[in-house]
Amino acid sequence: MAQNIYDDAAFLAGYSEFPRSREGLSGTSEWPALRALLPPVRGRRVIELGCGFGHLCRWLATEGAQSVLGMDLSEKMLARAAAETHNAAVTYRRADLDSLVLEPATAELIVSSMTFHYVENFARLIGTIFAALAPGGDLVFSVEHPIYAARATPEWATATDGRQAFAIADYSIEGKRQTNWIVDGVVKYHRTIATMLNGLRDAGFTYGSVDEWAPSTRQLETHPDWRETELARPMFLLIAARKPATGKN
Amino acid sequence: MAQNIYDDAAFLAGYSEFPRSREGLSGTSEWPALRALLPPVRGRRVIELGCGFGHLCRWLATEGAQSVLGMDLSEKMLARAAAETHNAAVTYRRADLDSLVLEPATAELIVSSMTFHYVENFARLIGTIFAALAPGGDLVFSVEHPIYAARATPEWATATDGRQAFAIADYSIEGKRQTNWIVDGVVKYHRTIATMLNGLRDAGFTYGSVDEWAPSTRQLETHPDWRETELARPMFLLIAARKPATGKN
Repeated sequence: MAQNIYDDAAFLAGYSEFPRSREGLSGTSEWPALRALLPPVRGRRVIELGCGFGHLCRWLATEGAQSVLGMDLSEKMLARAAAETHNAAVTYRRADLDSLVLEPATAELIVSSMTFHYVENFARLIGTIFAALAPGGDLVFSVEHPIYAARATPEWATATDGRQAFAIADYSIEGKRQTNWIVDGVVKYHRTIATMLNGLRDAGFTYGSVDEWAPSTRQLETHPDWRETELARPMFLLIAARKPATGKN
Repeated sequence: MAQNIYDDAAFLAGYSEFPRSREGLSGTSEWPALRALLPPVRGRRVIELGCGFGHLCRWLATEGAQSVLGMDLSEKMLARAAAETHNAAVTYRRADLDSLVLEPATAELIVSSMTFHYVENFARLIGTIFAALAPGGDLVFSVEHPIYAARATPEWATATDGRQAFAIADYSIEGKRQTNWIVDGVVKYHRTIATMLNGLRDAGFTYGSVDEWAPSTRQLETHPDWRETELARPMFLLIAARKPATGKN
């Protein structure tokens, strides 16, 4: 079973202070990039894996999704999501993505934001998602970029030219990372880009888009300090893939 | 026109001392990974872009390729390649990949090893390759991994845990890099993985495989020092893509 860090009171209190928790999508720096990868959602049956406080579920419903099923491991986040959702198209369900079961061919779109790096078995998860999508259905997800996530604790170093550089190590050594983020002992799983893309192919997906998030010109105007950090190394990796309309099911 | 550094006498002398120049494919650390991405070559018309001394061209001919056209900007490398090739299936031609022209639909396989990062206009190159492939044809290429190539000069830094980490910066700032490698002022072009993969998709390719090279267990036994360096960050990126058998031409 996956670690349920989001139900830890100290973690949840700290996480709740983040812009993405307080402000929702408008406080989520990679949201414009994720939105750009989403297909039209009107009339589609959508599942969000790792829905947290439900910001994206509510947006999807507002955009006209036929139904939105938000799934998360955290009871506390789901409780707040349900309390803040007033749209009959949205339902929430508790689920551990490491043992996820979904009905076959019941969704036209499955989305996930910054969750899959908590999942140990990527191949199992992707296979489950592929089966749950109707033919022609889309998967769009974001994770911590493996450049950022390769070392358990992100760190900057001073290069010989005096500039700050991001310190990367163990990129090719995949697996568990234990880090202290808000609280001690948060467990994540590092996977290379190749492993994710080849895993999608092996599951039967066709290639859509890859976005190694960088701030837009507009975001750099609002956050000039990002010029030094967010252009140095990508923090987010976003991927869109499609289940072929015909063939393997 | 691309920089013709490989015809510079000092550069060529230095490059000729590298294991990959002296020993050919057996001295090329990423060769087993590139070979694993190659489709069967028997009976196929093959083009190699950036063939250098012709080691791969000769291997392809030995494997039964119907024809192998090796192309390179360096007259001196082509001269040595021709002198060392004794197989009528192999021909060599001088070409600048920044203005490459190929006959449409005349190859079933186009390969390139560690060359595309010298090419300024990736989209033009990939479009030319797509047109030159027969339907169902394959493109397999390797480049410097953008993690490695993001900074003009690769550099290590000491992290707070005392371990060596690779210093990455400017990953999201694509374009020209001028570096001192063998000689001063070598010009390369940094592109993200996303740009390469999305560029292949835009040209019409379907996704094949991505390999972010890491040494095999056997290679680590032969080169134990690689444990600290080559598992820290990938030096090579290898990509296989296919032109659909039907559809867009």
